[in-house]
Amino acid sequence: MTTPAEARQGTPSGYRILNETDLRDYLAGIAAVAAQLGGPADRWSITEVGDGNLNLVFIVKGTSGGLAVKQALPYVRLVGESWPLPLSRAHFEHLALTHQGRLAPGLVPAIIHHDPALALTAMELLEPHIIMRKGLVAGAIYPAFVDHITTFMARTLFFSSDLALSAAAKKEAIASFAGNHALCKITEDLIFTDPYRSAEQNRWTSPWLDATAADIRADLDLHVAVSRLKLQFLSRAEALIHGDLHTGSIMVTETETKVIDPEFAFYGPMGFDVGAVLANLLMAYFASVGHERSPGEREAFESWVLSTVDQVWSGFAGKFLELWRSESTGDAYPLSLFPGEAGAARLEAERQAYMARLFQDAVGFTAAKIIRRILGLAHNIDFELIADERRRASCEARALRLARTLMVETASFTTIEAVTRAARELRQWQPAF
Amino acid sequence: MTTPAEARQGTPSGYRILNETDLRDYLAGIAAVAAQLGGPADRWSITEVGDGNLNLVFIVKGTSGGLAVKQALPYVRLVGESWPLPLSRAHFEHLALTHQGRLAPGLVPAIIHHDPALALTAMELLEPHIIMRKGLVAGAIYPAFVDHITTFMARTLFFSSDLALSAAAKKEAIASFAGNHALCKITEDLIFTDPYRSAEQNRWTSPWLDATAADIRADLDLHVAVSRLKLQFLSRAEALIHGDLHTGSIMVTETETKVIDPEFAFYGPMGFDVGAVLANLLMAYFASVGHERSPGEREAFESWVLSTVDQVWSGFAGKFLELWRSESTGDAYPLSLFPGEAGAARLEAERQAYMARLFQDAVGFTAAKIIRRILGLAHNIDFELIADERRRASCEARALRLARTLMVETASFTTIEAVTRAARELRQWQPAF
Repeated sequence: MTTPAEARQGTPSGYRILNETDLRDYLAGIAAVAAQLGGPADRWSITEVGDGNLNLVFIVKGTSGGLAVKQALPYVRLVGESWPLPLSRAHFEHLALTHQGRLAPGLVPAIIHHDPALALTAMELLEPHIIMRKGLVAGAIYPAFVDHITTFMARTLFFSSDLALSAAAKKEAIASFAGNHALCKITEDLIFTDPYRSAEQNRWTSPWLDATAADIRADLDLHVAVSRLKLQFLSRAEALIHGDLHTGSIMVTETETKVIDPEFAFYGPMGFDVGAVLANLLMAYFASVGHERSPGEREAFESWVLSTVDQVWSGFAGKFLELWRSESTGDAYPLSLFPGEAGAARLEAERQAYMARLFQDAVGFTAAKIIRRILGLAHNIDFELIADERRRASCEARALRLARTLMVETASFTTIEAVTRAARELRQWQPAF
Repeated sequence: MTTPAEARQGTPSGYRILNETDLRDYLAGIAAVAAQLGGPADRWSITEVGDGNLNLVFIVKGTSGGLAVKQALPYVRLVGESWPLPLSRAHFEHLALTHQGRLAPGLVPAIIHHDPALALTAMELLEPHIIMRKGLVAGAIYPAFVDHITTFMARTLFFSSDLALSAAAKKEAIASFAGNHALCKITEDLIFTDPYRSAEQNRWTSPWLDATAADIRADLDLHVAVSRLKLQFLSRAEALIHGDLHTGSIMVTETETKVIDPEFAFYGPMGFDVGAVLANLLMAYFASVGHERSPGEREAFESWVLSTVDQVWSGFAGKFLELWRSESTGDAYPLSLFPGEAGAARLEAERQAYMARLFQDAVGFTAAKIIRRILGLAHNIDFELIADERRRASCEARALRLARTLMVETASFTTIEAVTRAARELRQWQPAF
């Protein structure tokens, strides 16, 4: 059996890339899986559906149930074997998923089986859930989303932070994710560096955004701001973050929300996860006009998206604060330093100040997550599916303009309403192309 | 042989506490040690001299040379077996000493032999060096100290930071020190928590400081400030810090400086080490009047100490900046984001801003290190050797007053000269007891 330690070191000896036939034989030998699927193995349907950038994903259905099987490849699927990526990410994803499942029950897929040697995890099949980003492109509204995502973030971040953990437990937890640096490096390069310089992998909607991209490559105030964010990402081990919490990592129905794909997880700044959610909702907002078939057709959707942005922050902050008030079991902010009524009031004021600082971090990371999706390597379908490139570029230009302001003038955004107000105003702005 | 991994887990099986006879037999069997000492083992002199709080320390002298042998005990020596402390600290001390010796050659003792099972390290004998704190109590001036300590801090902190290391190397380094949490916990409790609340282990110069100690236990602004510093200590993995860099961890002659005892080392906030040096020099300054036999006798010493405080910061900042300008090999602040003359100028401005933020951190930690030495468990001889308790309390009250201001009004201290000016002014203040 391959130990987690071996799984973290390059390719374990038992690893092979599975095709659909291999997978059938493999799964048939695992009692928990066979029980979940039901019926004879030769009647299971197996389809590879991975549209992500990194892995193989199989949907397996039996006579009584289904599951999703994710296998890591030793390279970046989007690019090919020329860009190797360690299989150990499957170990870290499994570790993160286990933590998240414990901290935020019901908000991540249940794990049915994990095989470190094959870098493979079999999970609950999410059906009829769809990738949230696809729903947003179609203009769908998810009324339960705010409550679920704010619970997910508040609980996973709070309970892995110094507010909930002893310093010893937190240091051990940090160490357990320290090996996931190849995935962190992707973020460091693709989010915090490449969009701000000439890099072969960058792309944008050309020629419309050529001048904007050049401006951003020359914008030294922005480069300082993004470098400070990168330094935070490199050095602040605040909590176990998902690390890739965009709307493509969230599966939804009208009533359910499941966060998937935590392979970028590590101990980093909390604001990175919060900013990822805010950024991707804001991009859905800016892209929306590009998908309308008649003017104003998606007004209700757009209004819902912006109000969701407001509520994601306010809901997250409210739940995080509530956990802090009721489950402060960590070594930070010891209650014994804040005795009596006066102490309680002063600590409560400091909790608010802490959230204000976290909000500033989130605003900066929101901006970084927007810019990378428009000028960097990995784009998203919110914009990409707008076929008219000039129209797409207009949507992207508005998002970039907001992002630039958020990142350089972060301190002037002290409330989430200030952010959504700025977004609403930019909706009217017509770029000069 | 015990592996470092085993050494990190509680007491290794080969461990036994050595007396002088055991040590002689043990050392005689180690070729490198025997060569260093010279002559037959039965002619070696061995004396236990440990006056530290945690360990056994033996001075061993042979016919041609000497060495210092440090063995960790499975408990806190100062308190006894009732306060267990893992032997693994000897592993982390050895690891830190190895790093520091490579990064700051000549500024830490050379390691001659390390035995993980015995939690024992044999080091170069520092002779005729004395513990710097003893020299400061006696009013001695160390003209070479500033240059040495600023080199030590600039090099050990810079080269273990994101400015010099790749993110991958830094994450692995963080993990390698994550197990040292028992030592970190001592700092978390004794420095950042206990002095600010009623704790059995607290003591102070009573009755003179009773009111001041009570004020500090009730000072909620101060409690917020120290809690923010504690949170930094818990969550900011900026660099490999010494973790206990007071003047009792520094051995000096007029021309040499050696930093010893890095058993508290881990990846933490850089300002903690800088603050430790500044705090202990400031305490030497405030204690000085308590040691004078005639008024003004130690004026030259006091003037040297304060100018040393100024130069410790300015020298450290200058050297750190110079390393950043010339050896920026890390993932933070990539040079490619700051091209051309304009880019270079903007990056240089940001370097200055970075140092200004680091200075703020250092000011806060300076305050924390002063308060713990006057109101907490572990005091220092700067004050303790002032026999007249009322006089001692006056010195301590001045130091506490500076510390309170530094911690709560940190932002108003933007230069080190503002700190030394405030210290100089407080020298004249006479507490009302």
